[in-house]
Amino acid sequence: MENSPFVDSLIFDDQGLIPVVVQQVDSGEVLMVAWMNSEAVIQTLETGQGTYWSRSRNEIWVKGATSGNTQSVISLAKDCDADTLLLTVDQLGSACHSGDRTCFDAEVIQFEVSP
Amino acid sequence: MENSPFVDSLIFDDQGLIPVVVQQVDSGEVLMVAWMNSEAVIQTLETGQGTYWSRSRNEIWVKGATSGNTQSVISLAKDCDADTLLLTVDQLGSACHSGDRTCFDAEVIQFEVSP
Repeated sequence: MENSPFVDSLIFDDQGLIPVVVQQVDSGEVLMVAWMNSEAVIQTLETGQGTYWSRSRNEIWVKGATSGNTQSVISLAKDCDADTLLLTVDQLGSACHSGDRTCFDAEVIQFEVSP
Repeated sequence: MENSPFVDSLIFDDQGLIPVVVQQVDSGEVLMVAWMNSEAVIQTLETGQGTYWSRSRNEIWVKGATSGNTQSVISLAKDCDADTLLLTVDQLGSACHSGDRTCFDAEVIQFEVSP
């Protein structure tokens, strides 16, 4: 998949990256937000496994390669501006390196909801 | 809310912004991804209405202020790295300026899912 019309249509930022929202297919939970460069998008499309760019390690990173908590990809969508991706996956085990199911479990502010 | 421990704990990027995933509370749909500066986070916390920083117009932007498609905030969570937010809302009408319900309805690649 050297030339992918989908990848070519994406807008990457000045570091060559695009943010990716990762969502669990059945529960709808937002598991994490990570970043992809074009190579990570292509590798995700080719392998069907969530694959990202690590901004701290400066390398391609296959989710679960060391932890076993892999992500089987169900669908990949771009947004209206083509500068954000939504990856729907089936997450094995925890998405967060902390061991939490999602990366958003740590601190949540609840609002008063008027009926 | 001049000094908010929650806002003080967030990591903003070099442009003073943090990405925000916006999710519909009941359906779990990911509606859009937008950006907040600290002022937008505080205004969202104070008003309970989804409020962002417009990178194209360089101004605070209350979602639905012109379209009427407002977002009543249910909860606000930060991720494990404190550099991404998840805003759960009740979206009135369409989230996307295109008129689509979500910003991710335009182009979706489906994968073959093994049973």
